[in-house]
Order: sequence, then structure tokens, then C-alpha cells
Amino acid sequence: MERYLKVIDLLAKLREEKPLVHHITNYVTVNDCANITLAIGASPVMADDINEVEEMVSMASSLVLNIGTLNERTIHSMLAAGKKANDLNIPIVLDPVGVGATSYRTGTAKRLIKELNISVIKGNISEISTLYGMDARTKGVDAEESGDVSENDIQSKIEIAKKLASNLNCVIAITGAIDIITDGIKVYTVENGDVIMSRITGTGCMCASLIGSFCAVSSNALEGALAGVLSMGIVGEIAKEKIGISHKGTGSLKVEIMDGIYNLNKDIITKRGKVYEK
Amino acid sequence: MERYLKVIDLLAKLREEKPLVHHITNYVTVNDCANITLAIGASPVMADDINEVEEMVSMASSLVLNIGTLNERTIHSMLAAGKKANDLNIPIVLDPVGVGATSYRTGTAKRLIKELNISVIKGNISEISTLYGMDARTKGVDAEESGDVSENDIQSKIEIAKKLASNLNCVIAITGAIDIITDGIKVYTVENGDVIMSRITGTGCMCASLIGSFCAVSSNALEGALAGVLSMGIVGEIAKEKIGISHKGTGSLKVEIMDGIYNLNKDIITKRGKVYEK
Amino acid sequence: MERYLKVIDLLAKLREEKPLVHHITNYVTVNDCANITLAIGASPVMADDINEVEEMVSMASSLVLNIGTLNERTIHSMLAAGKKANDLNIPIVLDPVGVGATSYRTGTAKRLIKELNISVIKGNISEISTLYGMDARTKGVDAEESGDVSENDIQSKIEIAKKLASNLNCVIAITGAIDIITDGIKVYTVENGDVIMSRITGTGCMCASLIGSFCAVSSNALEGALAGVLSMGIVGEIAKEKIGISHKGTGSLKVEIMDGIYNLNKDIITKRGKVYEK
Repeated sequence: MERYLKVIDLLAKLREEKPLVHHITNYVTVNDCANITLAIGASPVMADDINEVEEMVSMASSLVLNIGTLNERTIHSMLAAGKKANDLNIPIVLDPVGVGATSYRTGTAKRLIKELNISVIKGNISEISTLYGMDARTKGVDAEESGDVSENDIQSKIEIAKKLASNLNCVIAITGAIDIITDGIKVYTVENGDVIMSRITGTGCMCASLIGSFCAVSSNALEGALAGVLSMGIVGEIAKEKIGISHKGTGSLKVEIMDGIYNLNKDIITKRGKVYEK
Repeated sequence: MERYLKVIDLLAKLREEKPLVHHITNYVTVNDCANITLAIGASPVMADDINEVEEMVSMASSLVLNIGTLNERTIHSMLAAGKKANDLNIPIVLDPVGVGATSYRTGTAKRLIKELNISVIKGNISEISTLYGMDARTKGVDAEESGDVSENDIQSKIEIAKKLASNLNCVIAITGAIDIITDGIKVYTVENGDVIMSRITGTGCMCASLIGSFCAVSSNALEGALAGVLSMGIVGEIAKEKIGISHKGTGSLKVEIMDGIYNLNKDIITKRGKVYEK
Repeated sequence: MERYLKVIDLLAKLREEKPLVHHITNYVTVNDCANITLAIGASPVMADDINEVEEMVSMASSLVLNIGTLNERTIHSMLAAGKKANDLNIPIVLDPVGVGATSYRTGTAKRLIKELNISVIKGNISEISTLYGMDARTKGVDAEESGDVSENDIQSKIEIAKKLASNLNCVIAITGAIDIITDGIKVYTVENGDVIMSRITGTGCMCASLIGSFCAVSSNALEGALAGVLSMGIVGEIAKEKIGISHKGTGSLKVEIMDGIYNLNKDIITKRGKVYEK
């Protein structure tokens, strides 16, 4: 199907071009973000000092901003790198980790969105709802998802995503039991993945790195976001199966996710992908 | 036996309630701390900026302070978060990593202890001795343990632990070949674990995260500390056995420890636990 | 052969003495650096605050400086720790990660080299060329290597390495498909390793940690550098073979590298080593 072909094409292009993906991110999952970027076939760089971020992002093909452990020093770097990225038409992916949990986090995320042109914002429903203006009290920085989402919930989430995408003129990706990706007009849902992915830290951050990697080789942010979310979902589901067979746990799950991204290919995408257009 | 039943109850409660455990910790082992917190069933958050730590800790059920890579910025955050935690009766677990190695580390640990009401302090014998006032020159931040501890040593360690616990009115956990946990009156020893655990970084930090996770669901810090230390010991020992069978090394050991915590249950605790009341 | 015996002797000495290796390094791969230092048998410490680095390095047997995520705060710490190390004749290993990518990085690396007496500088050809004064535009912080290096290339790389070593009066290690280690007079090449090692972040940083570990027990920086580079190469190659057999990916590769360093011994070094004197 067309939507898988697009993802497959992007993956081939990414592995051919090995684009540089500049991250300004948190120190909790930064290693996983670098490794998943390398595993998918791109090249990560993690510089965050104000003295070099503009020069570094100028060499990059995309910029990933993640506020997981934000602080005064890196906020300035995010703004400087982001403005330079905008000047050079380098796509920005924002992961507003834990937005809603504190006013500092919410204020920072809103400032980044206001001052920068963001291509893709990826978050869980609590984070995206906060940005949309609802008072979704985030519990820490990790999503909680029962794994049991009713059709009604999905419809209301899609509405939030579409409206926020239109308001901000960017792509919104809501990750959860069913992922939603929309540019405000077209809406994809992805039904891959497994709830166990929330039992390791960084699956969300890694997903943003994958989106950044795909957006680095695509002029279409919707496709880039879909490719990133789909890759993470498929691989999370494979990893779950593998650790289930061998009665392993979440330590092995992370290793399997990295292995899965490294080994991802068109056959797996075609066979496993559960992408729907709504 | 009663002491295992308490641990088993706490584990069940923890997995039911999924408490938020706020960490202000080092950037070396932060990812492992987050993952072990998730593996045991709690929910970690790692915010350390002065602008948000008070708001974040207010949402949490416990606070873990770890001085592994302390610096001016995070010391202020630790004090602010700690004071807020005290105001709200949220238990604080302190991991005084490497205290004794430098005067800055020693001064900071002592300041945290003086200005905050700490529920549990966990360290190796060198760290705890430093806090007790002995001149135990710490070699870097990692404990060295011969694996061969005489009964005399244990008795003198127990005395240090008891006195420090009484002096500071908190629970002291000394990790080593034989772990000691005391509130100054009651004393438990744990004889699980293996010396190979000191061959990966972060087993101590992860143990503090487990203690923080258990203390988040217990009003009894002694039980919370025992549960954390026992869980780490049992799982370290299982991990050692697994890598022995397959001739693996310390890379696999870390994965197995995470898997082991994820799969920990009452049968394993009852069968494996070596807790003694002294 | 003599060169393997030296490496084997150093490994035995290292595991006997467990020297403390002080790192001031980046937050991306810091956990891997600590773990590989422990896996080889040394003891890592990662302190970077200006208030304690001089005291910490005074207890150490070597100092590893890595500019992967440099910032104003840690540059001052690197200089202070480095000067103290020089005063005490503690060897310094510099990993000039990404030098050439930004002027800030280049300026910082050059400042460290000018103000400190460095024992070993380890980098990829792009980084070393930048330090040599050539305009090698670094693509991010990761080396790219085709795996296909002609004899001519090697000769010109050796010339760069030798001249830079003479100019700076230190050992230069260029890592790549064929590694080059020289003190300006003697030149070793190492033909171990595999191109897949560049598909995980931190193999370069870990190599610097190994060099730091070996230099901590050797008065001969050339031998220390050779031992570190050779260990990394042999183990990378073993890890590659292991994941090939089981169709794993780069998540498993990192685990296997850590396991391999832990299990490295004289038989493996003698059997696998491909060291040549040029």
C-alpha cells in the first residue's frame, strides 16, 4: 500500500544519505536516542552549548528538541539552535516531555512553540492536551495507558490532534495504545506497539529521534512522523514477542528494540504495519 | 516469615499504586535508575532544575537524592526539593556517593543531612563511616569489597550503622558482602548479592532507587530500605548465575539485573531471601 | 611476540592494581565509559565540578578528558584537573570528540592541548587532521569509514600521526579501519575491529577509557595506547561475530562489547591480535 511504500522509501533514503540529526535533549535517555538514531541509519550529534549549537545545527538535516531535563542553560541553546534551523529550513521535532507536570515545563514548551516553527510535535495524550490548553495533569514524565482505548477516546484524541495541528501549522503525533499522526487534514492511526514499551524509559524520546531521522530525508513532515512512529511501534511489538518467548524482562526489551530498529526492513514494515487512514 | 511477607506486600502495593519517585541524581547512572524504577513497578521522574523541583516533588511519593556528579546547580535543587518533601512528609532517600573522596562531596552530604530530614541513607561502609565521622578515605565512588567479611567486621559495622541511625534519627543501610539495615534499634542483615555487582556502575544507585520506590508505598522506612536492598541482592545473585551459565560478562549482567527486577515476585523473594534479624 | 606480551602484562597489572581513572566526559556515553573501565578491571570516577576535580584527580592514576558535550562549566574543570594531573605526573588521555565540527570545539581542544601536557590523543582521522591543522570538516561527532582504506591512505595518515606526535610530544592514536598508534618514532598499526562498531555511539569514547585504564598502570603511553586500541578492536570483532551468528543488532553489540572486555584474556589477545610495527 502507498503509505508503507512511502515509509520504505524513506528508510532506504535515510540509510543511503545517513543524515546528521542534531539533538538538544535530556541526560536520562540521551544515549538511547543516539543509539537508535545510529541503528536506523542516521548520524546523531548531541551538542547543547550556546557557543556551538548554531554552527552544529547548520551541518544537520534535522533538529530534535526534548525538554526531559530542561534547564536555563539548554533552553537558550534550544532557542538559538531552533532559530538557526528555521533560517535554514531544517525541520524541528519537539518532544515536550512532561509538559503539564510543572509550570516551568509548560512555559518552556509554549515558548519554544511560539518562537520557533516546529515541524512535528510528538507527545502522549497528556502532553498534547496540555499544549492544546486542557488541564491534563501529567504524572511525572511517563505516559500511562491502560491499553484499553475506546473508539470514542480515539475520536476525541483525533479532534485534539487535528485542531492543535491546524492551530500551530505543524504535524502532531500522539503516541499511545493507538498512535495518531495528523497535519490537521490527513489523519493516520498506527496500531502497532505494546504497552510494555512504557516500562522502559526513553521509548518516547527514541520515537522522537526516529521521527527526526526520517524528517531529515523528507520534505513531508507528516510522512516523516508516520515513519518514525510506525518504526517504533513495529519494533516494540517484535521486542515484546522476543522477550516473551525467552521469559526475559525490560532490560532485554531495550536491547531487542535497538536490534529491531537496526534490522528493520521493507518486508517487516509491509508484513507488520497497521497504519490506517481516518 | 514475617519479614518476607512485608517485602512481598510492599512489592504488590508498589505495582498496584505505581508511585512517582522523584530523583535528583548523577548523569552517569541516571538511565539505569529510571529503568530499574520502572522495572520494579514505580514511575521515575528526573527533573533537577531549581525552577521546577518543588512543583515536581509535590507530585511524587518519594525523593531520591544522589550526589554522584554533584555540582552547584543541583545542590540548590536538592535542598529546595528536599525542604518541600519534608514539608509534605514525602520520604527522602540519600545516596551519598563517594562521600569522603573530596571535601566538597563530604561537605555537601553533611549539609543535606543537616538541613533535611532524611528517611534513609544508603552507602557502602566507606561512605557511611565518613558520615559517622571516621576518616574513611574513599577510593573514587565505587566500593571495594573483598567478599570475605569476618563476623567481627560485621559487628563493628552494625555498631556504626546503629549509632549513626540513632544520631540522625533515620534508617541506615550499609551495602556490601553482607548488607546491614537498621533504624538504630532493629537490625537486619541481608546475605544476598554477589561481588560481581560492583563490576558494573550503578548497582548502588539502582539500589537507592529501589529503596525510594518501596519507601513511596510504606510509612515504615526500615521496611522500605530492607525491601530495596533485598530486591537488589536477590536479583544480583540471579543475574550472576545466569551469566555464569552462558559465560557472559558484565554487559549481560546489567541486562539480567533489569530483567530480574521486572520478574521479581513473591516466590523468588521467599525462596531466595537471606534476611536475618540481629 | 613482544608487543602482545606487553599488552598482556599491562592487563594483568591493571586487574591487580584496579587503578582509579578520573573522567571528565560527555553525558551521552558516560555510562558506557564507566562500565568499560570497570569491565577491563579499573575503577572509574566521573566528577566534573570545579570544586572537587583537583582533589579527585589527585587520587587517580590517570585522567580522561572527552569534549563530546563540552560546555563552559566543564572546560574550566578540565583545565583545573589537567593542571593538577600534570603537577602530579598523572597521565592525561584526550578524546577530542567532534573537533573540527564547530569553532568552539576546535578552540577548546587546542586550548587543552596548549595548556596541558597530554600523554595520548585519540581520535578518528577527521579529528586528528583538524588538530594537525588541516581543514577536515567533521560530520557531527562520529567517524565515517568506508572500511576500504588503501595503502596510500594509511601512509599519509601515518605521516600526519607521526608529525603531530612529534609536534605535541605525545602519543597519537588514529582509530579507523586500520588503527595507527605512534609516539612520533615508533608506529604500530592494529587491524582488528569492524566497521559495525561505528553503528553504536561511544565506541570511540570507550576506547579512550581503555587507554586511560592501561596508561594508569604504565609509564609508557605508547604501550598504554596500543593496549587500549587493541583491546577495543579485538572485542569489537568478537562482538560482531557473535551478533552475526544470532542475527542480532547493535543493541546486542554493545552488550557483547562489554562482555568481551570483561572476558578478555591473554589467549584471546595472542590469538586475535593483529598488531604490526611499521
